[in-house]
Amino acid sequence: MTRRLAIALVHHPILDSKGEIVTTAITNLDVHDLARSARTYGATDYFIVHPIQAQRDLVARICEHWREGSSGKRIPDRKVALELVRGVASLEDAMMALGGDGGRASVEVWVTAARDVGAAIGWREARARLEGEGKPVLIVFGTGWGLAPPVIRSADAILAPIHAALDTQYNHLSVRSACSIALDRLRGAGA
Amino acid sequence: MTRRLAIALVHHPILDSKGEIVTTAITNLDVHDLARSARTYGATDYFIVHPIQAQRDLVARICEHWREGSSGKRIPDRKVALELVRGVASLEDAMMALGGDGGRASVEVWVTAARDVGAAIGWREARARLEGEGKPVLIVFGTGWGLAPPVIRSADAILAPIHAALDTQYNHLSVRSACSIALDRLRGAGA
Repeated sequence: MTRRLAIALVHHPILDSKGEIVTTAITNLDVHDLARSARTYGATDYFIVHPIQAQRDLVARICEHWREGSSGKRIPDRKVALELVRGVASLEDAMMALGGDGGRASVEVWVTAARDVGAAIGWREARARLEGEGKPVLIVFGTGWGLAPPVIRSADAILAPIHAALDTQYNHLSVRSACSIALDRLRGAGA
Repeated sequence: MTRRLAIALVHHPILDSKGEIVTTAITNLDVHDLARSARTYGATDYFIVHPIQAQRDLVARICEHWREGSSGKRIPDRKVALELVRGVASLEDAMMALGGDGGRASVEVWVTAARDVGAAIGWREARARLEGEGKPVLIVFGTGWGLAPPVIRSADAILAPIHAALDTQYNHLSVRSACSIALDRLRGAGA
């Protein structure tokens, strides 16, 4: 048994470098890279959360280009990955889409952060939880300087910040890297 | 003890989708993401291998912008990562730079591939080797459809393809993701 797993990339509410709440822009390679990672590790959905319709339209246009256009024929592997992508207006919409009739109550939300933002669960523990039975799990990643505090507070669990085994005094990974590593820690065959 | 670790991203000789040998173009986010991953996991060098001077100039310009320009002041963390980056004309040049006076013979080269391309070492074994004593290790990543056969053949070891624990029939990760996962498997604190 393993639980259904989905990921979400949030563009609002996000912190900027000064700790203010902002909305970030869609980045093309975030669409591609996280979709490919999601597909590799068997996630069923990749929600791209953006409150602005024109930005969600951009996501739809990128995906269409690869799902139905000439690029999809040229690189069929990419098409399969981008089929997991859905633009949604809010994290709540992602939860509703994943939870079905049960909505928010039917989903477990795990947030990620590069800094210590509260009591976190370790990766082995998280992996074990995911391998058991239970609600679908939505893993939430932030853009910019990370998820805003209300998103962290409303989560069911916080995943531990990603670090090297040695103390390198640095963990400023791109969200593309952080998502890949998180999925590998939770579902990778690392032997 | 742990051995010195460096990474290289190769743009030639690279396979294209038809198996022909080509030269790929520099991608801005490859420069950034791999530098941030390298810095996070304590790699000492990130060699960007490109035979064309104008493309190496582009790498230099990107790095300068972040190391010395206004962006470095705005995001000092990025500056620290991009300080690891060096453009070189060939993989041999990367080996010479890493090996010092001893050159190629003083470096161990481990290549990565998404497909089975020969007898590979597992990740736990590779991690143990890296934690011991020995020559500096250069981990080599390909762009496009992967490293050309001569690069694979000349390596000291091949790292196993990255897969999920469950059989998802898919492992088409971006090189940004593959590099992050590889470094995490070799040097991450995954508990």
